[in-house]
Amino acid sequence: MGKYAIGIDYGTLSARALVAEIGTGREVGEAVYEYEHGVMDERLPDGTRLKPDWALQHPDDYLKALETAVPQAVKNAGIDKNDVVGIGIDFTACTVIPIDKAGNPMCWKYPSNPHAYVKLWKHHAAQDQANRLNAIAEARGEKWLKRYGGKISSEWMFPKLWQIAEEDPALYAETDRYMEAGDWVILRLTGVETHNSCMAGYKAIWHKKDGYPSKEFLKACHPLLENVVEEKLGPVTSIGSKAGELTKEMAEKMGLKPGIAVATANVDAHVSLPPAGLTQKGSMLMIMGTSTCHIMLSDEERIVPGMCGVVEDGVVPGLMGYEAGQSCVGDHFNWFVENCFPEAYAREAEKLHMNAHQYLTMLAEKQKPGESGLLALDWWNGNRSVLVDVDLTGMLLGMTLTTKPEDIYRALIEATAYGTRMIIDTFEENGVAIERLYACGGISQKNPFLMQVYADVLKREIHIARSTQTPALGSAMFGAVAAGKAAGGYDTIEDAAKEMGGTLPTVYRPCPKNSAMYEKLYAEYRRLHDYFGRGGNDVMKRLKGIRREQTQE
Amino acid sequence: MGKYAIGIDYGTLSARALVAEIGTGREVGEAVYEYEHGVMDERLPDGTRLKPDWALQHPDDYLKALETAVPQAVKNAGIDKNDVVGIGIDFTACTVIPIDKAGNPMCWKYPSNPHAYVKLWKHHAAQDQANRLNAIAEARGEKWLKRYGGKISSEWMFPKLWQIAEEDPALYAETDRYMEAGDWVILRLTGVETHNSCMAGYKAIWHKKDGYPSKEFLKACHPLLENVVEEKLGPVTSIGSKAGELTKEMAEKMGLKPGIAVATANVDAHVSLPPAGLTQKGSMLMIMGTSTCHIMLSDEERIVPGMCGVVEDGVVPGLMGYEAGQSCVGDHFNWFVENCFPEAYAREAEKLHMNAHQYLTMLAEKQKPGESGLLALDWWNGNRSVLVDVDLTGMLLGMTLTTKPEDIYRALIEATAYGTRMIIDTFEENGVAIERLYACGGISQKNPFLMQVYADVLKREIHIARSTQTPALGSAMFGAVAAGKAAGGYDTIEDAAKEMGGTLPTVYRPCPKNSAMYEKLYAEYRRLHDYFGRGGNDVMKRLKGIRREQTQE
Repeated sequence: MGKYAIGIDYGTLSARALVAEIGTGREVGEAVYEYEHGVMDERLPDGTRLKPDWALQHPDDYLKALETAVPQAVKNAGIDKNDVVGIGIDFTACTVIPIDKAGNPMCWKYPSNPHAYVKLWKHHAAQDQANRLNAIAEARGEKWLKRYGGKISSEWMFPKLWQIAEEDPALYAETDRYMEAGDWVILRLTGVETHNSCMAGYKAIWHKKDGYPSKEFLKACHPLLENVVEEKLGPVTSIGSKAGELTKEMAEKMGLKPGIAVATANVDAHVSLPPAGLTQKGSMLMIMGTSTCHIMLSDEERIVPGMCGVVEDGVVPGLMGYEAGQSCVGDHFNWFVENCFPEAYAREAEKLHMNAHQYLTMLAEKQKPGESGLLALDWWNGNRSVLVDVDLTGMLLGMTLTTKPEDIYRALIEATAYGTRMIIDTFEENGVAIERLYACGGISQKNPFLMQVYADVLKREIHIARSTQTPALGSAMFGAVAAGKAAGGYDTIEDAAKEMGGTLPTVYRPCPKNSAMYEKLYAEYRRLHDYFGRGGNDVMKRLKGIRREQTQE
Repeated sequence: MGKYAIGIDYGTLSARALVAEIGTGREVGEAVYEYEHGVMDERLPDGTRLKPDWALQHPDDYLKALETAVPQAVKNAGIDKNDVVGIGIDFTACTVIPIDKAGNPMCWKYPSNPHAYVKLWKHHAAQDQANRLNAIAEARGEKWLKRYGGKISSEWMFPKLWQIAEEDPALYAETDRYMEAGDWVILRLTGVETHNSCMAGYKAIWHKKDGYPSKEFLKACHPLLENVVEEKLGPVTSIGSKAGELTKEMAEKMGLKPGIAVATANVDAHVSLPPAGLTQKGSMLMIMGTSTCHIMLSDEERIVPGMCGVVEDGVVPGLMGYEAGQSCVGDHFNWFVENCFPEAYAREAEKLHMNAHQYLTMLAEKQKPGESGLLALDWWNGNRSVLVDVDLTGMLLGMTLTTKPEDIYRALIEATAYGTRMIIDTFEENGVAIERLYACGGISQKNPFLMQVYADVLKREIHIARSTQTPALGSAMFGAVAAGKAAGGYDTIEDAAKEMGGTLPTVYRPCPKNSAMYEKLYAEYRRLHDYFGRGGNDVMKRLKGIRREQTQE
């Protein structure tokens, strides 16, 4: 009889539990729990109004996911619960929960205080703190700043903690620990407090050798933050390790047996490499969805301009994990379909039983590269990597009276490919070689045309992860590693990746003729990228300034 | 009892006859004749295939318009035909007809020869000849080139004649005269050959003092063209003069009395100034439709970079008439509605009994200038004036995931206003003052929001011509002038304009607050205009080159 591991992927609106067979990676059962409270961005459950840019979650939802989705997934799998040897989870980050000494969320005690809830990754109300933090870091010449592309995001740990310290010092003081929600779930499962190296490294400026930012820096930000690391955070545990064992209480609630190995938590994107078979240096995985996250493995720490972060033990123990991102990929195409898909096309698509994306793709793929004469800059949601500038906006150029919707749709696809090329080129120009390129996520399996454009533009073969649930499978794999070989799991994530990870037979290979044409078009993209993005003409920022002015009047 | 004049406006697809009351300008009756052959761009009536870029017309359609629309308009007016004292016509130009000694179209003799038909203004198959003509003119330093923005269009007289001389020298030789179709209609009406100063000046490089291009230049183009002026064209007659009198034969066909005064022909745009009351220097009229034509009156001849032409006696006898243009105005908005108007919007517009333009305008006018953060370059159909470059294409910048269709629609409206501002600024910077600004044409009466944007961007009052049929009314007015005061008409077009022309009570006045914001946005437009249009980055041309390459493969 086989052994199994369970992976739980905590997303923004739901959590997915997946039962995977150790030895094969076969996904034998799954279940999804939609969070009852979803994303709270207008009101708390008791009706308390939230200010703009807030985004909270309710920790009860995370626990309910354990109690409902896990037993349902095991049931769907039709396996014996005694064959489950390990559990792993991945979580959105930085998603911060304040807890008391007993490990209970502060919101259980203060249900009307917004600061007592979980601040979701996309809580953007700490932008002011982030701006000040960046200014102070730059003024002090903090060397860690370069590891994060020169900018700390308002989504990350310290801006969020600073916001609480500043706006609610009493709650800040009373809180015993601030944890990543992922680590908190591990605490609930095992009774053991861990702070995983992936979230700490990418979201809380932690470095394996240098540790967290200095007390002097943190004090310069806010007096209450001076000792935040010892007082409110805690020691960091490498991903790939075992956090603890499932408690009796939680085992009962989840319909599992107590004592099962539980892995240290992980981030959804970063946990996706082993399921694609990737645990070696020189590999890059594109996790493609509404946005794209790029994770690269290397054995050297280099400073790459505009990367999101480099963290030792951030993805695979013993290697440097680099992160980069494009903040708008699928979102581009969705924006276009929602705002510019004409009625006549909708009728035609309907006749062909296609959705808008399928119909536009069908038309777009009939064209040759450059045939539409269009070129776009993929900055509808700013530029996350290389330029690291949220105030950049989209651009489309080359329109004539014969320009058709499919021309624009294709230009947007190509623009995201050029954006990826810019990231890869920047990494390679700065000494981080990308030897193998992989993709996972919805788009990578749903849109072969898009993947071919990427292969042509990037001039590289692209392999596609076999699993459509890479985060949940990755978590299960880390669960199997937590169990260890003796218990039917694995001793290393490399071993797990060899047996449970893998790619589809389809490989996208660049077509030399198309690549040659895209080389010309990419040169044009790069020139416009630099003109609008590196100070040649700051018109996008000025227009955004005017827009703010005119909408706030 | 009142006296009347008839104006006939020959457009691209139909001709409109209008009966106007002398003394008031009241439009008492009209009728439209749709050309039976329309625009022939694929085949001749006998099935002969046409090459790409050809656009021909059948002269019979022009005659049928006289025989059907004119009597119908008189009937609709309910007037006595004996009270009609003058006839005027305006025509598209340069629309060229080859005729024999008897004044008969060559296509009557050679119905299977494309070159024997009327070459419509938008016949673009002489681009190669135009390119060579411009190169020769530049090499020889022909000083008239500057009067036409440095470029002669393939739509104009000499490229079209050169094409015939080159491709069908036998027909070229056998043809007795090449006439503007407008002048040919006058010949049919009166038996008198005239070549009006408006068409000759704007389309055939004629100058009141310098005449036509030199024999040396014409010979350098093509040997057969050396004596084309004396052999195939003819002396020029000023607009505003009487060409002749209606012949007995035509009077019978048209249901009018013989001997009525017939005015020299005119161009549709240029004839529109007197109906708006404009016959004075310092006036500019914007004729706004799918494209916009700008006609200005001055008493001085200046060289303005990128203008379409300056012609003495071109618009009003005794004054310089300047022409400029934007090749894509209403066409922008139509393109957007056809290609990017989403289904959900279509449903909403339907509920409100609005068309797409009305619905988008309603949404767009709720915004403040700059609120959308968008900026466009209005070059979907190239740039006709200032830059004079057909290879420029559209650009849209500032998009985010919250950008809505109405934002883009408004940005396109604003872009056309900035384009107009660029033209006006260029004229004023070069010594041609615009003291009064007027508009006519469909858009000017249908879209008050757009006109307000123009007033705000241009920082000028805009007056709107009263008539919705300014070309036909203008032709009628020139008909009344041909008749003369003694016959119940007028002695000058100025007198006619005072009584028959005029504007609506509504005047669009700039809102200082909006103008201040548009001043900032226009500065951004101008910077991008120069970057993309004056060699900062020729990406648009390179993309167009690639597009040609990829579509011709």
